[in-house]
Amino acid sequence: MSGKGSVVLAYSGGLDTSCILVWLKEQGYDVIAYLANVGQKEDFEEARKKALKLGARKVFIEDVSKEFVEEFVWPAIQSSALYEDRYLLGTSLARPCIARKQVEIAQKEGAKYVSHGATGKGNDQIRFELTCYSLAPEIKVIAPWRMPEFYNRFQGRNDLMEYAKRHGIPVPVTPKNPWSMDENLMHISYEAGILENPKNQAPPGLYTKTQDPAKAPNSPDILEIEFKKGIYETPAGTILYHAHLDIEAFTMDREVRKIKQGLGLKFAELVYTGFWHSPECEFVRHCIAKSQEHVEGKVRVSVFKGQVYILSRESPLSLYNEELVSMNVQGQYEPVDATGFININSLRLKEYHRLQSKVTAK
Amino acid sequence: MSGKGSVVLAYSGGLDTSCILVWLKEQGYDVIAYLANVGQKEDFEEARKKALKLGARKVFIEDVSKEFVEEFVWPAIQSSALYEDRYLLGTSLARPCIARKQVEIAQKEGAKYVSHGATGKGNDQIRFELTCYSLAPEIKVIAPWRMPEFYNRFQGRNDLMEYAKRHGIPVPVTPKNPWSMDENLMHISYEAGILENPKNQAPPGLYTKTQDPAKAPNSPDILEIEFKKGIYETPAGTILYHAHLDIEAFTMDREVRKIKQGLGLKFAELVYTGFWHSPECEFVRHCIAKSQEHVEGKVRVSVFKGQVYILSRESPLSLYNEELVSMNVQGQYEPVDATGFININSLRLKEYHRLQSKVTAK
Amino acid sequence: MSGKGSVVLAYSGGLDTSCILVWLKEQGYDVIAYLANVGQKEDFEEARKKALKLGARKVFIEDVSKEFVEEFVWPAIQSSALYEDRYLLGTSLARPCIARKQVEIAQKEGAKYVSHGATGKGNDQIRFELTCYSLAPEIKVIAPWRMPEFYNRFQGRNDLMEYAKRHGIPVPVTPKNPWSMDENLMHISYEAGILENPKNQAPPGLYTKTQDPAKAPNSPDILEIEFKKGIYETPAGTILYHAHLDIEAFTMDREVRKIKQGLGLKFAELVYTGFWHSPECEFVRHCIAKSQEHVEGKVRVSVFKGQVYILSRESPLSLYNEELVSMNVQGQYEPVDATGFININSLRLKEYHRLQSKVTAK
Amino acid sequence: MSGKGSVVLAYSGGLDTSCILVWLKEQGYDVIAYLANVGQKEDFEEARKKALKLGARKVFIEDVSKEFVEEFVWPAIQSSALYEDRYLLGTSLARPCIARKQVEIAQKEGAKYVSHGATGKGNDQIRFELTCYSLAPEIKVIAPWRMPEFYNRFQGRNDLMEYAKRHGIPVPVTPKNPWSMDENLMHISYEAGILENPKNQAPPGLYTKTQDPAKAPNSPDILEIEFKKGIYETPAGTILYHAHLDIEAFTMDREVRKIKQGLGLKFAELVYTGFWHSPECEFVRHCIAKSQEHVEGKVRVSVFKGQVYILSRESPLSLYNEELVSMNVQGQYEPVDATGFININSLRLKEYHRLQSKVTAK
Repeated sequence: MSGKGSVVLAYSGGLDTSCILVWLKEQGYDVIAYLANVGQKEDFEEARKKALKLGARKVFIEDVSKEFVEEFVWPAIQSSALYEDRYLLGTSLARPCIARKQVEIAQKEGAKYVSHGATGKGNDQIRFELTCYSLAPEIKVIAPWRMPEFYNRFQGRNDLMEYAKRHGIPVPVTPKNPWSMDENLMHISYEAGILENPKNQAPPGLYTKTQDPAKAPNSPDILEIEFKKGIYETPAGTILYHAHLDIEAFTMDREVRKIKQGLGLKFAELVYTGFWHSPECEFVRHCIAKSQEHVEGKVRVSVFKGQVYILSRESPLSLYNEELVSMNVQGQYEPVDATGFININSLRLKEYHRLQSKVTAK
Repeated sequence: MSGKGSVVLAYSGGLDTSCILVWLKEQGYDVIAYLANVGQKEDFEEARKKALKLGARKVFIEDVSKEFVEEFVWPAIQSSALYEDRYLLGTSLARPCIARKQVEIAQKEGAKYVSHGATGKGNDQIRFELTCYSLAPEIKVIAPWRMPEFYNRFQGRNDLMEYAKRHGIPVPVTPKNPWSMDENLMHISYEAGILENPKNQAPPGLYTKTQDPAKAPNSPDILEIEFKKGIYETPAGTILYHAHLDIEAFTMDREVRKIKQGLGLKFAELVYTGFWHSPECEFVRHCIAKSQEHVEGKVRVSVFKGQVYILSRESPLSLYNEELVSMNVQGQYEPVDATGFININSLRLKEYHRLQSKVTAK
Repeated sequence: MSGKGSVVLAYSGGLDTSCILVWLKEQGYDVIAYLANVGQKEDFEEARKKALKLGARKVFIEDVSKEFVEEFVWPAIQSSALYEDRYLLGTSLARPCIARKQVEIAQKEGAKYVSHGATGKGNDQIRFELTCYSLAPEIKVIAPWRMPEFYNRFQGRNDLMEYAKRHGIPVPVTPKNPWSMDENLMHISYEAGILENPKNQAPPGLYTKTQDPAKAPNSPDILEIEFKKGIYETPAGTILYHAHLDIEAFTMDREVRKIKQGLGLKFAELVYTGFWHSPECEFVRHCIAKSQEHVEGKVRVSVFKGQVYILSRESPLSLYNEELVSMNVQGQYEPVDATGFININSLRLKEYHRLQSKVTAK
Repeated sequence: MSGKGSVVLAYSGGLDTSCILVWLKEQGYDVIAYLANVGQKEDFEEARKKALKLGARKVFIEDVSKEFVEEFVWPAIQSSALYEDRYLLGTSLARPCIARKQVEIAQKEGAKYVSHGATGKGNDQIRFELTCYSLAPEIKVIAPWRMPEFYNRFQGRNDLMEYAKRHGIPVPVTPKNPWSMDENLMHISYEAGILENPKNQAPPGLYTKTQDPAKAPNSPDILEIEFKKGIYETPAGTILYHAHLDIEAFTMDREVRKIKQGLGLKFAELVYTGFWHSPECEFVRHCIAKSQEHVEGKVRVSVFKGQVYILSRESPLSLYNEELVSMNVQGQYEPVDATGFININSLRLKEYHRLQSKVTAK
């Protein structure tokens, strides 16, 4: 046991967190390495050996895929949450799941510290640390990329390379990609390098999890997805998102859906900004889950050239009444009622017109 | 001039409104036919001749495409409004534009009545009539499909066909498609027939404006779209929607965007339910337009197999500061500030944890 | 048993519903009178005798006070719902409670019809009837004030008086107040007559449940109200509203409260417009109830001259940490963190300033 | 001119900022004292002399009352914004107004620094500093209560007293009130001391701007307030709030008002948390101002025992149509229309009932 006590480090096996591992030991900490399996492509055993070789006292490789899907991805799908109307929140969702397990390990191992290799910019550090403080207020977070003694020493990749060589940390032989990736079973994202210039488009060779649509097969794949209050098989996020949206619109009252839509916007914001583990996000998740009680049924989708097309859907709990909709059957519906409906709604508009005329006349 | 005065009928040239034209004359109205050009494929001259032959006193064929795009489509694109997170509101947008011109014609021609062929179900009749009452409270709407004397007489297509034959109305020779279409320069939609059963998928041959993705060309089209407070060229709605979303996220403050997003949800609801011409929709449009003041720039998009891919964007008014984002440059940003930011945000979460512990302990 | 079957009439004992009772019998209905006790001042036994004398087959006088308070008033207090930022929704809350019991009586008695004396204007008829249709879609509502055969016959109070005399309906001897009242244990409201002119102020003598503040006692009443997930004693709505607001702000996380506030606005709108019994209102009530889980504690209030003053509060579950707030104790709080918090928040504002300068410079 | 350059200090004349003034000089700054007049009771000339005597190079006493009312109080009244449904935001509104002038002085005087005496806790420092950074990103804020060299030296009131004596700063002879006050023409608030314990009620003698209701005169004051897009006389905030709410409900379309209400919640949050000078608050203010275009008219209010009672109102632009509301006049309104309106609205509720039955039956 070193002088300053134990720290649980979120370890990736890469150059950065390997250097951090060694540096933490230098600072007098006893390091426990932790690597979460959220479905990314990774040689976990290789990473374990590496961490031990670099001096980690223990290594935890934890498969949190199941809880990631059930407790994080699924509520997000239910919320139909897109950040800025576009992004599926893959990275934002994985972080609180990974950090939660890290806190558990720290508590189990009696470690007072946790550490991570997230940069001092952006939301990733926030997602990580708010999770820690929410679940274990007494814990201390060591964020090297925000500590002058660390970031002043390692001002660029060269400094890391040199430090690695000196401390027996294996150095990657291939030149680094000019971007960094974040991968999990839901998604993969890229950042940095030439991608930072919004004028540049994605370079060929970027696609790993998906295929460049231009090279995708020329025939579609057909899937059938069954929803039952969250029991389901897991295709990729985008497919699930579209299929869920379809079955939801088919089974949920439209006014409930409007209210839920507002809650979904809030949910996306909270997740993106790192507040998954907060009273307000817990509250919003509860409300959204409530809205899903009768969302069940089957959706057939076609996946073609990287896009999702809904083919058809069916549900025992549909609010869609084929008889009522049909142009040929009247059901309980009296056309004259629509006249009353329109007249009552127009009263207010007519009054407003009267007012506008007064204003204009002035 | 007939006994009951003049009525301006929204005429399509099809079987239904041709029968309505003749029926209105039978009822003692003097009929003025009106056909709006919103970019649909149509033989307008043929329709004019037909209306005159059936006894219309006058025929107005009005090209409202420009105002449709500028005053209706464009605000919708700016709002990023999707009804139920999916639909681009094509039909809902065209209706108030078409009805507005119809009211103008009625006022110019001194007609007390307007009429349309919309069914007694659904939102189309509402969109039409609320527009009329908002703009001309004194006007009377004749909606034959809600009048027992009309719908009891015409209980199915056969009744219409027979009436047509008897009154010299040209009857379509080809069997009718088992769905009806609504087309304008922004979109095309289909309803009725086999499409009413949600278990059925779209039949081959449905695509007219677009192509079945499976048969689309194997190379993408690249477009560059320039936004400048609403000056732009008009590609299809979907492309415009995605390109605008991209440039908006690039140039609009994220907190302004969140507020605008809530207004966009309201806008979509109002448009869909027929309240374009209402004080609240006017108010929402004003607010959304205000949010767009600095949304300008160029977006390059690739259209491939019916899908839109954003390639790159640039804007003189971007809020995206490449220097600030870059991992290598610090700019005004001090990493230690993030620690303070996280600590302050975590205070509330820690307090909540303390409370939760009390509750659990009880 | 008469020809048309049974109708359950919401009976008040007054002139209007007495005339309706007799008129319904004239139309061939078998009338069951129903009078709900929601805490109003009323001689219920007198009303029962009157209804029987006028020919009601049965009379139900139902005390629904307890369910009114527990299932309707209390959720409204929890929502902090004020319609238009001012009104406590007293009438709107009582109506769905009263109508629900009426539907139950109809179902128990095998009556196909329900009836009420609400006018053909305003929201009261809507609140009544949407409740009926929601709970028993097959039921038929008879609304005499919307039926031409009724309202054409009774065009003013004189017609009712004359009809009453002819049919042995006791006629009030005192001249009618120039307003009508709606009273329940939560509130009393007045409408019609001189109150319809917004330029007029309330006449002396209007106050029955409360006192004109100018005449109220010159010493305050002090109350202590205990909240425990809805267990409480029932003072008037306004006191409860303010006391609850106070304890809620004291025990609820502020971000949860903001979300709940939005839901409260929606709740007020739904209740006011008659949608208590709807999927969306049910959903909103569920969410609001969830937010109240830890809202408990005691509030001391002073009631003086018709106004409510909060004196103090205490709660075992307060989120208010006296130690943290105190200016003298630092706790976990490091002042320097505030600097980081402010700097991070100002980054975006500085960028926006930079952009504004560009725009101005153009 | 001292070594570190000039700093504009927000000076109150009290013990704290007097000590800060001297301390800043000790640190090598050239101090310009600035005292804003926002309507508080203050001997401004006394404060000017004191500042000069303590070594301020210049003193600015700026009357910002007019801009405070017109640009800050008035938009808040228009928003009907209450923080947590109760507070009129008096302090939050004054801060950005005061700080804006301070920035102007700094720019005019070529000072690189501004300073204030706000504590290192709470929102006041944030309101102050975000205003500075928004309006002048290059400015540096000196916040002594967050600087260890300051707060470690002055750990309590005694340290300040002693420092004051040593530096010739006049020391208050009366013992300090156990609370601090913030006053402006809109409101007065108190904090600290025994008020920090939520179990304590306000001590007698706290009221300065208002009167303890128990001691207020026994006859009401009647006021008539005229609104005209913001031209008005200035009574206290509470009166204005209630009067405006009344005339707004009287002249604004109810659906516009609902949307505006949501914006008002956002506005209150932004103002309270210090974001007055931000793109989102600017946007919200613009939208709210737009909603007020037709809000004009006169309101008569009675002020009695510290409470506000609306007596009556009138407006040339009212949406309230007395004729339409009256129970005796029908106007354009056909009672049968209400039947259609109710039937159409009940369709969805009936469908939901059908679904619920299915779910229950399972």
